[in-house]
Amino acid sequence: MDSDQSVVDPAVTATADDIAAMRIRGAATIADAAAAALATQAERSDAATPAAFERDLRAGARELYETRPTAVSLPNALRYVLRGMEGETVSALRSSTIDAAETFRAELEQAQSKLGEIGANRLRDGDVVMTHCHSTDALACIEAALESGTAVEAIIKETRPRKQGHITAQRLRELGVPVTLIVDNAARRYLDETDHVLVGADSIAADGSVINKIGTSGLAVNARERGVPVMVAAQTIKLHPDTMTGQTVAIEMRAETEVLSADERTAIGGDADEMPPLRVENPAFDVTPPRYVDAIVTERGQFPPESIVTLMRELFGETTAEPWDG
Amino acid sequence: MDSDQSVVDPAVTATADDIAAMRIRGAATIADAAAAALATQAERSDAATPAAFERDLRAGARELYETRPTAVSLPNALRYVLRGMEGETVSALRSSTIDAAETFRAELEQAQSKLGEIGANRLRDGDVVMTHCHSTDALACIEAALESGTAVEAIIKETRPRKQGHITAQRLRELGVPVTLIVDNAARRYLDETDHVLVGADSIAADGSVINKIGTSGLAVNARERGVPVMVAAQTIKLHPDTMTGQTVAIEMRAETEVLSADERTAIGGDADEMPPLRVENPAFDVTPPRYVDAIVTERGQFPPESIVTLMRELFGETTAEPWDG
Amino acid sequence: MDSDQSVVDPAVTATADDIAAMRIRGAATIADAAAAALATQAERSDAATPAAFERDLRAGARELYETRPTAVSLPNALRYVLRGMEGETVSALRSSTIDAAETFRAELEQAQSKLGEIGANRLRDGDVVMTHCHSTDALACIEAALESGTAVEAIIKETRPRKQGHITAQRLRELGVPVTLIVDNAARRYLDETDHVLVGADSIAADGSVINKIGTSGLAVNARERGVPVMVAAQTIKLHPDTMTGQTVAIEMRAETEVLSADERTAIGGDADEMPPLRVENPAFDVTPPRYVDAIVTERGQFPPESIVTLMRELFGETTAEPWDG
Amino acid sequence: MDSDQSVVDPAVTATADDIAAMRIRGAATIADAAAAALATQAERSDAATPAAFERDLRAGARELYETRPTAVSLPNALRYVLRGMEGETVSALRSSTIDAAETFRAELEQAQSKLGEIGANRLRDGDVVMTHCHSTDALACIEAALESGTAVEAIIKETRPRKQGHITAQRLRELGVPVTLIVDNAARRYLDETDHVLVGADSIAADGSVINKIGTSGLAVNARERGVPVMVAAQTIKLHPDTMTGQTVAIEMRAETEVLSADERTAIGGDADEMPPLRVENPAFDVTPPRYVDAIVTERGQFPPESIVTLMRELFGETTAEPWDG
Amino acid sequence: MDSDQSVVDPAVTATADDIAAMRIRGAATIADAAAAALATQAERSDAATPAAFERDLRAGARELYETRPTAVSLPNALRYVLRGMEGETVSALRSSTIDAAETFRAELEQAQSKLGEIGANRLRDGDVVMTHCHSTDALACIEAALESGTAVEAIIKETRPRKQGHITAQRLRELGVPVTLIVDNAARRYLDETDHVLVGADSIAADGSVINKIGTSGLAVNARERGVPVMVAAQTIKLHPDTMTGQTVAIEMRAETEVLSADERTAIGGDADEMPPLRVENPAFDVTPPRYVDAIVTERGQFPPESIVTLMRELFGETTAEPWDG
Amino acid sequence: MDSDQSVVDPAVTATADDIAAMRIRGAATIADAAAAALATQAERSDAATPAAFERDLRAGARELYETRPTAVSLPNALRYVLRGMEGETVSALRSSTIDAAETFRAELEQAQSKLGEIGANRLRDGDVVMTHCHSTDALACIEAALESGTAVEAIIKETRPRKQGHITAQRLRELGVPVTLIVDNAARRYLDETDHVLVGADSIAADGSVINKIGTSGLAVNARERGVPVMVAAQTIKLHPDTMTGQTVAIEMRAETEVLSADERTAIGGDADEMPPLRVENPAFDVTPPRYVDAIVTERGQFPPESIVTLMRELFGETTAEPWDG
Repeated sequence: MDSDQSVVDPAVTATADDIAAMRIRGAATIADAAAAALATQAERSDAATPAAFERDLRAGARELYETRPTAVSLPNALRYVLRGMEGETVSALRSSTIDAAETFRAELEQAQSKLGEIGANRLRDGDVVMTHCHSTDALACIEAALESGTAVEAIIKETRPRKQGHITAQRLRELGVPVTLIVDNAARRYLDETDHVLVGADSIAADGSVINKIGTSGLAVNARERGVPVMVAAQTIKLHPDTMTGQTVAIEMRAETEVLSADERTAIGGDADEMPPLRVENPAFDVTPPRYVDAIVTERGQFPPESIVTLMRELFGETTAEPWDG
Repeated sequence: MDSDQSVVDPAVTATADDIAAMRIRGAATIADAAAAALATQAERSDAATPAAFERDLRAGARELYETRPTAVSLPNALRYVLRGMEGETVSALRSSTIDAAETFRAELEQAQSKLGEIGANRLRDGDVVMTHCHSTDALACIEAALESGTAVEAIIKETRPRKQGHITAQRLRELGVPVTLIVDNAARRYLDETDHVLVGADSIAADGSVINKIGTSGLAVNARERGVPVMVAAQTIKLHPDTMTGQTVAIEMRAETEVLSADERTAIGGDADEMPPLRVENPAFDVTPPRYVDAIVTERGQFPPESIVTLMRELFGETTAEPWDG
Repeated sequence: MDSDQSVVDPAVTATADDIAAMRIRGAATIADAAAAALATQAERSDAATPAAFERDLRAGARELYETRPTAVSLPNALRYVLRGMEGETVSALRSSTIDAAETFRAELEQAQSKLGEIGANRLRDGDVVMTHCHSTDALACIEAALESGTAVEAIIKETRPRKQGHITAQRLRELGVPVTLIVDNAARRYLDETDHVLVGADSIAADGSVINKIGTSGLAVNARERGVPVMVAAQTIKLHPDTMTGQTVAIEMRAETEVLSADERTAIGGDADEMPPLRVENPAFDVTPPRYVDAIVTERGQFPPESIVTLMRELFGETTAEPWDG
Repeated sequence: MDSDQSVVDPAVTATADDIAAMRIRGAATIADAAAAALATQAERSDAATPAAFERDLRAGARELYETRPTAVSLPNALRYVLRGMEGETVSALRSSTIDAAETFRAELEQAQSKLGEIGANRLRDGDVVMTHCHSTDALACIEAALESGTAVEAIIKETRPRKQGHITAQRLRELGVPVTLIVDNAARRYLDETDHVLVGADSIAADGSVINKIGTSGLAVNARERGVPVMVAAQTIKLHPDTMTGQTVAIEMRAETEVLSADERTAIGGDADEMPPLRVENPAFDVTPPRYVDAIVTERGQFPPESIVTLMRELFGETTAEPWDG
Repeated sequence: MDSDQSVVDPAVTATADDIAAMRIRGAATIADAAAAALATQAERSDAATPAAFERDLRAGARELYETRPTAVSLPNALRYVLRGMEGETVSALRSSTIDAAETFRAELEQAQSKLGEIGANRLRDGDVVMTHCHSTDALACIEAALESGTAVEAIIKETRPRKQGHITAQRLRELGVPVTLIVDNAARRYLDETDHVLVGADSIAADGSVINKIGTSGLAVNARERGVPVMVAAQTIKLHPDTMTGQTVAIEMRAETEVLSADERTAIGGDADEMPPLRVENPAFDVTPPRYVDAIVTERGQFPPESIVTLMRELFGETTAEPWDG
Repeated sequence: MDSDQSVVDPAVTATADDIAAMRIRGAATIADAAAAALATQAERSDAATPAAFERDLRAGARELYETRPTAVSLPNALRYVLRGMEGETVSALRSSTIDAAETFRAELEQAQSKLGEIGANRLRDGDVVMTHCHSTDALACIEAALESGTAVEAIIKETRPRKQGHITAQRLRELGVPVTLIVDNAARRYLDETDHVLVGADSIAADGSVINKIGTSGLAVNARERGVPVMVAAQTIKLHPDTMTGQTVAIEMRAETEVLSADERTAIGGDADEMPPLRVENPAFDVTPPRYVDAIVTERGQFPPESIVTLMRELFGETTAEPWDG
């Protein structure tokens, strides 16, 4: 075997494929799977030298990283595991890498329930919570509230175009929460009956902005206007260290057919030559400025959005060199 | 024939049925049909005495009124025609009623194009207009702009649950307007590219509030936050004289299946006994406070919402006794 | 009797004394008493000539006017009655003056109940109303609501320094309304449970400002911040025509002892020489800008504050020359 | 003389030239001069027939109108005089036209002092007033205040690019007012010492917007943020009736050299080929939305900006056909 | 003596009683007394074993803690002293505990004067300060300002229901500060003459909210609206570490008779059967959102409220296990 | 030579003179020159003892410090160098001081380009940036954007009274940026075409306030009102550690002739006896509250203004004793 040629374990490749194809999805699930894949590669690696072992692991990390370079939990997971890779021998490297992956996964597993308990403390018996999209971090807050005997009700925005609100409705009903489902357009009207807006986050930027499912920012602006506090539930794997250096978060544009089916398109004129072109825009996320968010709830405590950068620096320092580029 | 028994012409009954069944819909269309129906009854009436003629016409008006007692253009049309019914003989009553109906319909027909010209004057070449729901009054503004050589583009909110934005998209494309279609959740993001929010109105209250398709108020709040002016296009038949005496406008709740299909309902747990009940709320309209509206454009000129009550008093006076109760 | 010497009836003087001593108080009561006093003088007058009759009536009006020159209902009442004084003979002048006074008083008597019906239309069953100070106009709205079967609850600010909230509490309890009494400082906290802020007015200015009991403006600012609409109940005798010409309404300063009793003053150092002077300020009213008021409810309908000037011009014209100066 | 050929008096042409060259400037001065010019033409006209007289007067009006078609007082003056032109004979037409011009000029002359008295009523002894640009209407308010014994001080923004604040400073010092001159950038800092922002207007639109010297809107936004009321002094000749039909007011762009002298331009690179072009923009006016204005003071009383459309309709009706097009 | 039985010194019990009965009150006084009581117990303890000593001290702490479990300075003091309790022998434990208590008390004693100097730096000669309730931390700022030659004046809200403003008035007069006393309702009017709102805090939450005497939040909202900065003086013993985990601060409800005396209750209907019940609500505190606070001044420097969580984490870490539960 | 007499190197005195005379200006240039001057003094010093060396260096620092005691970069530079002065011998002190100065200057040199890269990341291709005054930190952001291929355009406020906008215009044109120059009054109008407001800072206070060229705060308030984000570029030498203890930043008043030339002064009445005095105020800076700033970009990353105090504490600790006072 050519010692310059890096070897990536098939388990890593399989995980990378699953992430790319969105069979593995959700920030925590991706982070967990990526850490697990690196652990598998460490376990199975037959690298002859420490250098080869490190090179292979970095190559595996790079392969995983490149599936979703705009995701934020994925590189955070990879950074964590590779930082834990230490030792002078292949054996030592192997075990330290596996340990790091296990620790990461264990903390990750606890993160959501810790976050849930913290978020639940903000809720009081009888409160009505309005949700947008589907977020397991947000759900964890409600679940923890219920477990501690705090009964809540939910008003659920359906969240076009993909109507993830239906998933939230189902889960909350399974938990015994009375649910009212509304279209997104009805949000302002029902804010008058709402005690908290509770959403998750795709990522959190250093300036305190919350990047989340399209529609979050419009809801937050209306919540402030109606005097309803906005609470964002987000594990620290959602913190986006690149934004400390001013990077803006790229907003993914998704398929037009999520917004307009082929039949609907035809019905309104399709692509007829005599008509001006029909543009359909489908951004996945939007950006809520920190001034419309009352608290960001993480597993490390709750924070005003303006101070999340301090936590980010605590966890990630000022450096942004990536281990898979090393 | 018993002279105490009022007679309503079958044409009136047919029109009333069509309005009730929403085969006739849209504020102006309803008003026009109601006036036409009264004219037909006046023409065909074989009432023997002036008193019988008047009684029959009022009965016809009442029948029409009762199809949609919460509509606002319908009673305004009936009031106009019955106020025109004057004379000492059946013949004089007949012709004055027909004249009133014709005048009303002629003015009504012109109203939208006059309103359109006024609204068009607010637009400048190259402006981008964001629309919500489908409003022929709003469309008239864009059409008049195009006719006078002012090119505009449109960003169209689909307007769940019924997606009337699709109709607007089709009409605007037919007029040659480049169209971008978005889900309602994406509105705030696209306000940064928008020069005017342009909507119609279901009715306008004396305190300057705009009652319009659910989602209007949330859009208006965000437009103010983004610095985009909001323009409401509404013929004066939309002015709601009852609100001068403090009446609030009742908001119609529409079918749940517009929001959630039977299949979707089943998928999220349906009405299973072990689950808490699933409530689906589908209000047709919401109320935008006057402080979020920059101008109300009518066929009588444009008005700040706070002064629309003056126009309302000019047109309807302070009295609210209804001619069909006479 | 010297024909140049004006004669004022003792009934007028008695009424003037009662107004000055605040035995007659409340805008409507004062207006009613003033109109009644002029009617009495007209009835009893033994003036020999029309000129003497007119001169005496104007003198009576002036005497009444000067008791409370900053009140607004008083001059409005005097203007109304004196404008009605018409005729070529003493007898004609007498009867026209009496008629005018009676009409004024009859309309005044109806005004509050009409206003109450209009205000009641803004309330819905189960609404919670927060009040400040004691206003019979505001109470009329609640009373009318109750009469039409709309149940409401009240949160009552005690309204230091004179605690007129206690009067409101007593009246509302007598009407069967469940009452929660709070100190003024607690208002913002209880706005979260409030559907309407409902206050009266001392007077309304042409720029839409509401002059009312001290504390109203601070409450209105907080109500807007909490998303609670503010409704001002004020008969048109509260409209202040002088303000059309830019006059600001003078704010009466009341006795310091309402704020700080003699004992309390001593306890905090009194007027000891070695201490800096202790100033106690006790303004009776403050000014709420129109942008914090959602509707002004009068017996002539409800108005956005920004359009009240139109009603003022309708009722009083542009002129401000006073009949008692004639 | 060819009877189809309209004749314009040299006095009209001379006035038109002076207006075009800005030797005659200021809204009231222009309106006065235009009315005077029409009166002169009426006096001197040797038209043989009433039709010729009318035709010539309209031609004179048109010549005046075309000098500054975007001015607002000019067409208002022309409309007023031509509406007064009545009669069956040349002699009657002549005298009625002269009468109308004189009435207009007399009312115009009083307008400013009436407006001043109304505006002065808003000021209290010791108040500090901040001004922008130079407005004789605004000055009239201060002058009236001083005459009635109300002492005020002034903070004067220099008002780049033309520094009209210097004129205001000179006039106010001549009136004995202590003056502080600042650059425009310092306005927000000095708002903390300011009791009123007081500005004039170039014109007032039907939606309550105030079109005034560039910089007014930025000042008004800061005044609201600092809690300082904004008062606009504007005679009714500034009301812009075309805006009732949605017309926006065109904003004149003035010479670049007002902003950047030729020497300054050279110093920063001039028009060197290797540099990107240097654009200098010099708009004369900007638009202040009504929500940042507390009162518009006219000679007919003060108005909230949202109700100025009512006054506009009272004075000009709904029609906009122009007499010089007749 | 049974070794499992914890012994609490009578001095601790006496202090606990005094705290419970509010004979000892004020956050710093309570903290100081609690630390002193623990020192006394340490000094007098005749515990035979280190374990018994520790157990007894924790029991003493628990007894103190339970007197006011919602106070925040009390547990912070107890935590500080018990963390200092170190050593292998009773003697070592005794002296380390006494040392810790002395250090705590010494720092606490300096804290207010340090805080005062920092707060004083925000004031300028001639400034007018508005106060709410009575706070020695706030007073320390004024006192330090006076000592450094900065003269200030004070506008004092009386602060119903207990009128603690009277205490502030007395203290400030003793310091030579000219004082204006007003009712709480007059605050907005006098904000126009105010340069700083200066209040203390009952506690500060991790999201930057300020929990303080009822009425603070309404004042802060009005101060922002009037452009007056709000400064909160609070020693770090007021920071509430439990809120880092999302706990909300429970708001104590105080006696109804503070709001309404028995006589007053009777006068407005008492508990008559025929009347609906009279509820009197008397919350001691309210919550001011961080967006209405300009700076929190502590003895460790001043902080924007949004970054106080960083100081909280610095001082208390992320853990919340309590030593008296150990 | 008297050993108690401190000796300051002529190079230090020369630098101090240049700073005092504003021949050396700009925060970074001053800091760099001050560090260089101390290095020169260290190099040339012939102090006989370590104590004398230290005393002389402190005296040099004091001389530099006293030239501009209100500047913020100057004391920060002096602190940095003197903290680096370590050792037991003159030789060791010399070399450590020189090293410290070199390190400081090297980091300072990189700071602007690092900051530029971070700021550039906030800009997107095609963005329009509005600038106020001239700031090399702000320019560095644009320069870095251009270098990475991001094209931007600039709208430049001239920035009266000194028109530093002209310098910015020249520099940006040299970089190839299309430039539009406007007067300060036109800013609000052009905010509608602006994607970012980008300014530098004179200093940054612990409460997140930005002290910058007069006019910044008024621009920031309007930017928020128009929905345009505000970005402040400021190296960490601009952080003002004294403000952590509540110190407010003194605002320098500059020469009146910058605002009003002698000729202009004469033209508006000069100092004539019969006129009230003419005050001209020319503050150099104003204070922008943190709530109007979206991000502060430093070479250590970007921060919400509310969390800059954390960075300040990280860099400077809580102590404020000055080494030149030692």
